[in-house]
Amino acid sequence: MRIAYQGEPGAYSEAAALRFSPHAELSPCKGFEEVFAAVERGKVTHGILPIENSTGGSIHQNYDLLLQHELPIVGEVKLQVSHNLLAYPGTKLADIKRVYSHPQGLAQCEHFLQNMSGIEIVATYDTAGSAKMIRDQGIKDAGAIASSRAAEVFGLEVLEANIQDFEENITRFLIIGRSTATQEAADKTTIVFTLPNVPGALFKALSVFALRDIDLTKLESRPVRGRAFEYLFYADIAVRRDDLQCTRALVHLAEFARSMRSLGSYVSWKEPEATRESGVGNRDSKWRLTTDD
Amino acid sequence: MRIAYQGEPGAYSEAAALRFSPHAELSPCKGFEEVFAAVERGKVTHGILPIENSTGGSIHQNYDLLLQHELPIVGEVKLQVSHNLLAYPGTKLADIKRVYSHPQGLAQCEHFLQNMSGIEIVATYDTAGSAKMIRDQGIKDAGAIASSRAAEVFGLEVLEANIQDFEENITRFLIIGRSTATQEAADKTTIVFTLPNVPGALFKALSVFALRDIDLTKLESRPVRGRAFEYLFYADIAVRRDDLQCTRALVHLAEFARSMRSLGSYVSWKEPEATRESGVGNRDSKWRLTTDD
Repeated sequence: MRIAYQGEPGAYSEAAALRFSPHAELSPCKGFEEVFAAVERGKVTHGILPIENSTGGSIHQNYDLLLQHELPIVGEVKLQVSHNLLAYPGTKLADIKRVYSHPQGLAQCEHFLQNMSGIEIVATYDTAGSAKMIRDQGIKDAGAIASSRAAEVFGLEVLEANIQDFEENITRFLIIGRSTATQEAADKTTIVFTLPNVPGALFKALSVFALRDIDLTKLESRPVRGRAFEYLFYADIAVRRDDLQCTRALVHLAEFARSMRSLGSYVSWKEPEATRESGVGNRDSKWRLTTDD
Repeated sequence: MRIAYQGEPGAYSEAAALRFSPHAELSPCKGFEEVFAAVERGKVTHGILPIENSTGGSIHQNYDLLLQHELPIVGEVKLQVSHNLLAYPGTKLADIKRVYSHPQGLAQCEHFLQNMSGIEIVATYDTAGSAKMIRDQGIKDAGAIASSRAAEVFGLEVLEANIQDFEENITRFLIIGRSTATQEAADKTTIVFTLPNVPGALFKALSVFALRDIDLTKLESRPVRGRAFEYLFYADIAVRRDDLQCTRALVHLAEFARSMRSLGSYVSWKEPEATRESGVGNRDSKWRLTTDD
């Protein structure tokens, strides 16, 4: 397994890829588009994309890219994200005049940044890439918000650790691949659909799942590009794509949706620790039965 | 009427404020937080906030701020946004090494920027503010994506006009005020609610509107900050808050929503031209009857 990710070594996507597959080979890419291109051209077997953060919300660009490409989602992983303020060795907190990071990194440390008066906040394409820039250019009056691993990789110092606004700051990543074969243990499906602009259309769309006791775990709306205020809906449903109830629900949805597409069916992420430590709910036990097959 | 807006003179929010109230006095602010603060402290009577763009999607920060503050939405306005690449007089397209703009401005001109090879893209707090910076600092190797009015205000040249990805690029703005009295002609209400994390919860929530033939014109989900993967829902419904059917629907919703709040009831935006030129639908005629009262 060879996984492409956006960013430099030390990026959160790199850590998430290793969480998904501890022995995978990793391939850094400049942007999310390049992650898709690497999978399409067969340079790698899989790609990993952040899709949603518990503080900052959805990463809409990746929802848009999933639609533009034909690569199925084959897995997901969740990662606790701890941000740090990194700087060139010897730089003091009082020396910092600018802070670089990815817009999501900046958004997740809003309170911390508000308390640093008189600094300039600069959005960059990557958290670890900001750390690399400070090292490469020897910048001594700026900091980068990135992982503690990025500090190790680029030889920077951690000026402040755990600076995210909320202790529990979790990012959910999707794994994309080329094979569309549904895995045995798949228990989650992501679909995208558009609806006619008539009253009650979304209610009808959700009814096809509710009437079959299929749980909707996420619903996201995005504008249809170039068509003002028409929406696409991305939905995560807790069922595998080739389950009979899922097929029936999607056939029902197709009766009135303007368009519909499945983006993939995959195994939802379960925390290895949580499964061991906490009380086991329905889902965990189902997962254990399935993986024992 | 005195309206606070985010940005410098020449910002799209300034144009939207004048569209809403052509004779209003205008007060520029550095950030969206400052717009809320100006209204709260009585420095201005109203504030204007971009909430959604037909290409780039929702401006989530403003959804979050509406929840943190107690200022009601009292109106909305839509504005066609045409972006331009501005530069210091004498600068040629080939001289441009960096392009500055607000992240939404950059996102709406993605194709144009992809075709400018080897440039650095820098996110700033404001479109017109980027134009001001080029003028103030005399920057001759960079461009700003902003309105043609910003070019006039700051004495810059338009290198390329209408560079947005889609011809129809519309931003919807909300007007916030202090008075909670519902206007006679109000025909739209924005509410926010949270739901217990059980299957079918969102379906039930939408049923309270669908069962009463109340049209839902927008549904947006946002994470509850600090509570991983729990969501708030923002909904726009096409009914005035003190309509009996609306009251019934919200009482019904309160039976199972964890929390619920109305953010305001207001007159939905109708294009002055469209009302005159196109065939008149139900809504337009209802609006005309109501304003004739």
